[in-house]
Amino acid sequence: MQKTRLEAFSDGVLAIIITIMVLELKVPHEPSLEAVLVIWPKFLSYVLSFIYIGIYWNNHHHMMQVSRAVNGGVLWANLHLLFWLSLLPFTTGWMGENEFNRWPTVLYGVNLLSCAVAYYVLQSRLVRLQGPDSLLARAIGMDLKGKISPLLYMIGIATAWFSLPWLGITFFAGTAAMWLIPDRRIERLVIESSNPVG
Amino acid sequence: MQKTRLEAFSDGVLAIIITIMVLELKVPHEPSLEAVLVIWPKFLSYVLSFIYIGIYWNNHHHMMQVSRAVNGGVLWANLHLLFWLSLLPFTTGWMGENEFNRWPTVLYGVNLLSCAVAYYVLQSRLVRLQGPDSLLARAIGMDLKGKISPLLYMIGIATAWFSLPWLGITFFAGTAAMWLIPDRRIERLVIESSNPVG
Amino acid sequence: MQKTRLEAFSDGVLAIIITIMVLELKVPHEPSLEAVLVIWPKFLSYVLSFIYIGIYWNNHHHMMQVSRAVNGGVLWANLHLLFWLSLLPFTTGWMGENEFNRWPTVLYGVNLLSCAVAYYVLQSRLVRLQGPDSLLARAIGMDLKGKISPLLYMIGIATAWFSLPWLGITFFAGTAAMWLIPDRRIERLVIESSNPVG
Amino acid sequence: MQKTRLEAFSDGVLAIIITIMVLELKVPHEPSLEAVLVIWPKFLSYVLSFIYIGIYWNNHHHMMQVSRAVNGGVLWANLHLLFWLSLLPFTTGWMGENEFNRWPTVLYGVNLLSCAVAYYVLQSRLVRLQGPDSLLARAIGMDLKGKISPLLYMIGIATAWFSLPWLGITFFAGTAAMWLIPDRRIERLVIESSNPVG
Repeated sequence: MQKTRLEAFSDGVLAIIITIMVLELKVPHEPSLEAVLVIWPKFLSYVLSFIYIGIYWNNHHHMMQVSRAVNGGVLWANLHLLFWLSLLPFTTGWMGENEFNRWPTVLYGVNLLSCAVAYYVLQSRLVRLQGPDSLLARAIGMDLKGKISPLLYMIGIATAWFSLPWLGITFFAGTAAMWLIPDRRIERLVIESSNPVG
Repeated sequence: MQKTRLEAFSDGVLAIIITIMVLELKVPHEPSLEAVLVIWPKFLSYVLSFIYIGIYWNNHHHMMQVSRAVNGGVLWANLHLLFWLSLLPFTTGWMGENEFNRWPTVLYGVNLLSCAVAYYVLQSRLVRLQGPDSLLARAIGMDLKGKISPLLYMIGIATAWFSLPWLGITFFAGTAAMWLIPDRRIERLVIESSNPVG
Repeated sequence: MQKTRLEAFSDGVLAIIITIMVLELKVPHEPSLEAVLVIWPKFLSYVLSFIYIGIYWNNHHHMMQVSRAVNGGVLWANLHLLFWLSLLPFTTGWMGENEFNRWPTVLYGVNLLSCAVAYYVLQSRLVRLQGPDSLLARAIGMDLKGKISPLLYMIGIATAWFSLPWLGITFFAGTAAMWLIPDRRIERLVIESSNPVG
Repeated sequence: MQKTRLEAFSDGVLAIIITIMVLELKVPHEPSLEAVLVIWPKFLSYVLSFIYIGIYWNNHHHMMQVSRAVNGGVLWANLHLLFWLSLLPFTTGWMGENEFNRWPTVLYGVNLLSCAVAYYVLQSRLVRLQGPDSLLARAIGMDLKGKISPLLYMIGIATAWFSLPWLGITFFAGTAAMWLIPDRRIERLVIESSNPVG
């Protein structure tokens, strides 16, 4: 029950974040092909952030699916994650408007890093609540991706800082690509747990 | 369970897309009748896109209703569809602001085409998951509309490209009209499957 | 099942409409008390539209609660209602920005009238589907309010047209007040039907 | 059933309020670090309002969880609360843009006070409906926080009025901090009531 409403609220916030980002793609006034092609940096940063919100929704979805209980601490850890995600339209817009300039790219990376840390905090609180033998704890396992991501964000931030924003973007896009590869473990566990005879 | 949250998230995104499009209808400053009548191209493109989002919501709704299972691939195919739909406020605004000029109309058609392709990909993934004898596979059947639509969009894009944007719009509006005619097949199947005695 | 998703989608759209209207209340640049007091016409029109969306949500909620079945026609009648409601942020913003001037007030009234007609169409389709002896048909009964409202809107539109916008506003506000008085009939019926022994 | 839809609608509105506030954080045009650091007052007011919406969602969530019945009066008391909360993006934006100036800070405090009063009204209506021996009535108990908050808001408003806006902000932030401390009572009661044997 409590879990359902946490999921509904998170879905709502994520659905709004993913959609209002398009408002930063300001409609050009002229009807020329050039006028729309010139906004490609905004479009690219929109695509990247759309994929990231998609990844977070997907992972959040899977994580909640194998969680039974939820408490006050989890609610706040979830709001903390949503806070950092809610800043993505802002940092995405700034990076897109300034064509992947140094500082905007650094800030975008810091935002991604904050989201990753907030997700880790939420995950830890959920695991602690479900217990070490829970479905969730087993599903997460080593959590290799979760441990590598912050590192990749930090490298991306550093390279952007040292005036190589494009290399930074490559790191941010690469991390997204890594997450896009579906995480079979959780799905397998869910199927196993619902077919206990198997 | 998994399906429910995918539906909830899609509903949220579609509800937001359909509603934020109205923000492109900028409130005129003057209180004259002319000031509001002059925005009729924006209004017309708003109506067309509203109907399209409505059609997608309707079809999505029916398709999910006859689907039992959902997996990671379906989640991403769904996000892919939502991505192209999320660009509709942008292309709608550009076409409306430029009074159905050549390039904006071409881009609007490309957006509609992308949505249709993304919907087809989602449908195919769902059918593959449910199996060839599933309720969904039978409900879709020949999928005549789904096959004609991209063709009509392409003709519309081509005519707009050859400096006949109004003919292009007619094709886009005609395709919408074709979809508005309710698809009795799925509804009939749903009723049959819930009254198996019939 | 189908009904649940229709409700969820409508809730989403209504929630967004009621909330994005506040974006028309542009934040004043100066920090003076006058700067914020000067937007009272915008605030007043915001309050009125907020109440109207609340009334529609409330009535929609009650109507769906006593409806069992839903079909394609109902889905489209519902989208038709949402379309007219989605224009409220636009007409509200225009009326507020022009301080209840003649044409903006007329258009606002036309918008309210369109919503009322669309609601009536949705209600009729639902009643036809549930049958004349259904809980819904009995709950609606005479539907006095539903019949008086369009009349009041038309009087309001006419008075605004004849350069008495404030009288028009009074009619629009009066109709809202009439709806705010709770409709005990439906609630009583729902209670009766869930306590069939009574 | 009725309760579920009230929760869903409230979740939707709260999710939108919390997310559109970020639109007031206007994307700076320049790519310099200074350009983004200069908006710290907007960011700070965004953080404060985000936390407040989070607190309201959290408390609303808990309150509805221990409520069984809902009626027309509750629906309207709920909409009344959502109305005041929906103004937060406006007052937050004004306060942030004017760097915690006198009048914007006073208005922000008035907004917080109105939300608190509206919440109290909703809570009272719910308690009256559930009865004095209900789970909700026992969960609320003395409601010390609920009684102290309006007082703290009033002191904050007064100090901001007397040209000490920063002291006012401290009171508003302090009240939020007080609510962040989780309310164990309700959670305990919920657990007890679902394990009645205990």
